[in-house]
Amino acid sequence: MGAVAEPGQGITVEELALATRNRGMPLEGLHYEVTPVGMHYLLAHFDIPAIDPAAWRLRIDGDVARPSQLDLAAIRARPAHTLRVTLECAGNGRARLEPRPLSQPWLVEAIGTADWTGARLADVLSEAGVKSRAVEVVFTGADRGIQDDIEHDYQRSLPLADAMREEMLLAYEMNGRPLEPQHGFPLRLIVPGWYGMTSVKWLTRIEAVSQPFTGFQQAEAYRYQQAEDDAGEPVSRIRVRALMIPPGIPDFFTRRRFLAAGRVVLTGRAWCGSAPVARVEVGVGGRWAEARLGEPGGSWAWRGWSFEWDARPGEHTLACRATDAAGNAQPTSQPWNLQGMGNNLVQEIAVTVR
Amino acid sequence: MGAVAEPGQGITVEELALATRNRGMPLEGLHYEVTPVGMHYLLAHFDIPAIDPAAWRLRIDGDVARPSQLDLAAIRARPAHTLRVTLECAGNGRARLEPRPLSQPWLVEAIGTADWTGARLADVLSEAGVKSRAVEVVFTGADRGIQDDIEHDYQRSLPLADAMREEMLLAYEMNGRPLEPQHGFPLRLIVPGWYGMTSVKWLTRIEAVSQPFTGFQQAEAYRYQQAEDDAGEPVSRIRVRALMIPPGIPDFFTRRRFLAAGRVVLTGRAWCGSAPVARVEVGVGGRWAEARLGEPGGSWAWRGWSFEWDARPGEHTLACRATDAAGNAQPTSQPWNLQGMGNNLVQEIAVTVR
Repeated sequence: MGAVAEPGQGITVEELALATRNRGMPLEGLHYEVTPVGMHYLLAHFDIPAIDPAAWRLRIDGDVARPSQLDLAAIRARPAHTLRVTLECAGNGRARLEPRPLSQPWLVEAIGTADWTGARLADVLSEAGVKSRAVEVVFTGADRGIQDDIEHDYQRSLPLADAMREEMLLAYEMNGRPLEPQHGFPLRLIVPGWYGMTSVKWLTRIEAVSQPFTGFQQAEAYRYQQAEDDAGEPVSRIRVRALMIPPGIPDFFTRRRFLAAGRVVLTGRAWCGSAPVARVEVGVGGRWAEARLGEPGGSWAWRGWSFEWDARPGEHTLACRATDAAGNAQPTSQPWNLQGMGNNLVQEIAVTVR
Repeated sequence: MGAVAEPGQGITVEELALATRNRGMPLEGLHYEVTPVGMHYLLAHFDIPAIDPAAWRLRIDGDVARPSQLDLAAIRARPAHTLRVTLECAGNGRARLEPRPLSQPWLVEAIGTADWTGARLADVLSEAGVKSRAVEVVFTGADRGIQDDIEHDYQRSLPLADAMREEMLLAYEMNGRPLEPQHGFPLRLIVPGWYGMTSVKWLTRIEAVSQPFTGFQQAEAYRYQQAEDDAGEPVSRIRVRALMIPPGIPDFFTRRRFLAAGRVVLTGRAWCGSAPVARVEVGVGGRWAEARLGEPGGSWAWRGWSFEWDARPGEHTLACRATDAAGNAQPTSQPWNLQGMGNNLVQEIAVTVR
């Protein structure tokens, strides 16, 4: 991990290839409390596997009393739970950093909220009988590839106590329909509150282990590091963030916004994985004022906000920032990190009022 | 129209912003004869409008005997027709050109095939009674913005004879479900065989006109031009193209492919908007051989192909090229054009066999 762009270097063709494969949620998608399936952000490390659901099995093994293999019908036969969950990629905002870490070049659109339906992970683990020596649960996806010269299946772990939380789902539906292939068909893990890398797609195996997992995507990737030789801290819960629907109409190429003078209601949504959103402020030309919060969206989903702005002719910079109930606010400048993780710098939108 | 990147200039932040808003179909999506909704390519010039279907109306006017306004129920009450249609963005391949036209920086993924259901445009036009002086039909979308300093609603026209063809649909369903917002909810035009710019999304108005339409997206954009002062030819039907699913597994960042030695079946799909696909060839290290064509996908959809390759250890470049029934073959080098339109240069995939 750890290559960065040269100062002033344009986006590389490798970054572009990632940006055209993966996809953000266009910010006008903040209009929808539940993101339409095809607008939800998507990051797949390797290829999207094409899985035959009839042949697919989920293996549950490792430090469990009763190892098993479940087919999709067996998972669907369990009590179904539906949660509205906001997911965000841990690398969101990476392409705004200077120097720019070389990876998927997200600006701010790596977000989305869906209604995920599935079985409770805790139920499945309890049935398997996790042994007392187990400390973590490792989740393996069907996607395989190479990163930093290491060939591996995509794998992530959770501490056992986190895995047993009631909000962890083995999800087979998104917005009331079977998962589409790119979102993890036939089954994916959903870890509410955590950045998206933890919600392993195309699940094939759940393994209880008695030693902390040290696979590539856990021990090398997804760390808050300052340098290559810094082990860093693991990335986990989603940091507080607000985003705004860019008002007015865009220029096709520059995406600059143009707006008629007069009163305009600015709207957006805010979320945080570790505490409720307590406050959203809107900045106009660097002066901040309180936005009005909408109804809470449940424990794991974003919350709407709005702000009335009397738009006067001229050039303006709009911004928004959220603060969570623990007092964490989005930064207006932010310490850089090598992998470009957990960036929640405030969004800024340049607007011409005419 | 017509800005191009400096020689060797990296992708600009404006191009990146377009690439993260719009989305290609990851090439492993070629596995599916019908592309899942959320994998289908998407290009929206301006913002994706949020339309209230209860308030929405389609205005039909201009040179017609019986102008009208139809609601969604009235359109759904007409006989429904479903067509399987491959759509491709006219700018697909643009980012591979040198110098690179500055616009949405597609590599090769701006494709997708869906089952579109709707009313026949010809039925609606016949009911309206198009007057004999009408020469074209203009389609207006609800999306508005600025391009090259010109503020406009997105609009495109079709010659009347094309508009009356039986395959033209006013579509309200994609793959059997109501359109998602980004694909044109509640109603879009589907013009099988033509590049995607003609399939106007978020339709609000259909107008018969007695003079050729000269709006920005018709007279300025979507032209095969060599220079700014060259009026050029209009872009219309999709040129013949084949694409291959990259075999093996990828490196996360470079997307280079790695494959075990042995026999491998290479697969992909091919399509053309003006004639059936007659032939697909696969090139290995510059030597071309015939691929096997699958069943035709209907008049307007892509056709599968496959090729058995005995992969020997080493570095290889794989390619594929299609030829249509009129004898048009994909070029291995291609004349450049200013807007980067209609590029169907053969795809090349670098593969390491181990």
